[in-house]
Amino acid sequence: MKQLTIIKIGGNVIDNSESLHKFLLDFTALEGNKILVHGGGKIATELSESLGVEAKMVDGRRITDIETLRIVTMVYAGLINKNMVAQLQAKGSNAIGLSGADGNVIKAKKRPLKTVAGSTIDYGYVGDLDETSVSVAALDSLLKANMVPVLCAITHDGDAQLLNTNADTIASAVAVAMSALYETRLVYCFEKKGVLKDLNDEGSIIREIKDSAFENLQADGIVAGGMIPKLHNAFEAINKGVSAVYIGKADELQELNSGTFGTKMLK
Amino acid sequence: MKQLTIIKIGGNVIDNSESLHKFLLDFTALEGNKILVHGGGKIATELSESLGVEAKMVDGRRITDIETLRIVTMVYAGLINKNMVAQLQAKGSNAIGLSGADGNVIKAKKRPLKTVAGSTIDYGYVGDLDETSVSVAALDSLLKANMVPVLCAITHDGDAQLLNTNADTIASAVAVAMSALYETRLVYCFEKKGVLKDLNDEGSIIREIKDSAFENLQADGIVAGGMIPKLHNAFEAINKGVSAVYIGKADELQELNSGTFGTKMLK
Repeated sequence: MKQLTIIKIGGNVIDNSESLHKFLLDFTALEGNKILVHGGGKIATELSESLGVEAKMVDGRRITDIETLRIVTMVYAGLINKNMVAQLQAKGSNAIGLSGADGNVIKAKKRPLKTVAGSTIDYGYVGDLDETSVSVAALDSLLKANMVPVLCAITHDGDAQLLNTNADTIASAVAVAMSALYETRLVYCFEKKGVLKDLNDEGSIIREIKDSAFENLQADGIVAGGMIPKLHNAFEAINKGVSAVYIGKADELQELNSGTFGTKMLK
Repeated sequence: MKQLTIIKIGGNVIDNSESLHKFLLDFTALEGNKILVHGGGKIATELSESLGVEAKMVDGRRITDIETLRIVTMVYAGLINKNMVAQLQAKGSNAIGLSGADGNVIKAKKRPLKTVAGSTIDYGYVGDLDETSVSVAALDSLLKANMVPVLCAITHDGDAQLLNTNADTIASAVAVAMSALYETRLVYCFEKKGVLKDLNDEGSIIREIKDSAFENLQADGIVAGGMIPKLHNAFEAINKGVSAVYIGKADELQELNSGTFGTKMLK
């Protein structure tokens, strides 16, 4: 089975042109089939402010209203995605930038109203994914044409509506779906070198975590806060067919080849 | 030889949601391989105004400075392209939206400084095309994957720089280049039903014009003003391998099949 690496980068890489340059070089050097998924970054927030569009929050949750959707479509699918593709092309990656609408690669469902603690929340133009969302055939045809898909966090509902979708979720859904044809590995890049025993000591990285150890790590307080849903997603990916999931720092990507990158999640 | 239709639409279709809806339905109904090229429209101008970015003009010529490039990248490659792709997907076309950087489909050269009437003009981030610009193999691989490329007017220089490129020129360059593999026809949609003998009478349309008749039409004043460069481009496309070029109204596209659409330019 051929290998496929799916890498997700977030705003911390995108917002820093030097970090991004180094990451895109390392990404280009990575051998084999690959797909890049990117989040947003500060640019969308800055553009919203320049246009006087206020971030809509309901009960601490960010809402994607129609104005915000226009802005993230412009920034994620336009400015960030096309500049990243142009940089990858210059570095030797045959990148092709995509929203979920392009080639129908990711079809989402608009998030239904949710009732939380008695109040009804309308998240607006947010798309959720399920096991039918990713078009394996479309992504495979691009990979077979020696292209490198670069996915932004915009999807569509198949009925002409664009939707804002979490980039972590897109990366996971793509990795799971592509496992039907490829031996896949999923790499989440975030601020830390990996899962740390001691948050203040980057040397305390845990190299491998088995699914069976996840509960103990939570009980011991080693995995806490925002790491819990992140690792939960990671193990879910493994249990749905992804061969390995890594969490680590974007600027250490070249260590993926030597097997010493970040924390590796195992079945 | 398989047929391929390249259709270019401009701002007059894009700015009117009803016109666009009808055009995209007719485009979807068109049989065979096809590529859509779209220009900008009023949205980029409106966004520039909202952001306080003034249109830079030098000697009556529009200049693409770095701020304007950011805006057209967001609007053309992001907002317009992705909404158009989502609409086409909903109507049954397997559209894939592309800038020239995506899959390296169109590599342009930044326009050099030009001296006109003694003064030097820097057009800024504008890309010109030549006979090596279009990647026939990349577009062909997408067509073979049953996708419909939707090209916006953003290209790249292969060295990480995005560039603003005239959509008419992109359509013509794509049609000429793809003639190596396909029997191509090129369709320019504009405001009128075609080349008219009498500008004020839409019934006075000239159905066919041979290249040899072009000079006479100019001498008679039937082709004048902005129509001269448009027809010049059209005949250049025919002389470089495109089978037929049409000029006509977007809302009459369904007449392309019956051979009664607009004005047909012949070798």
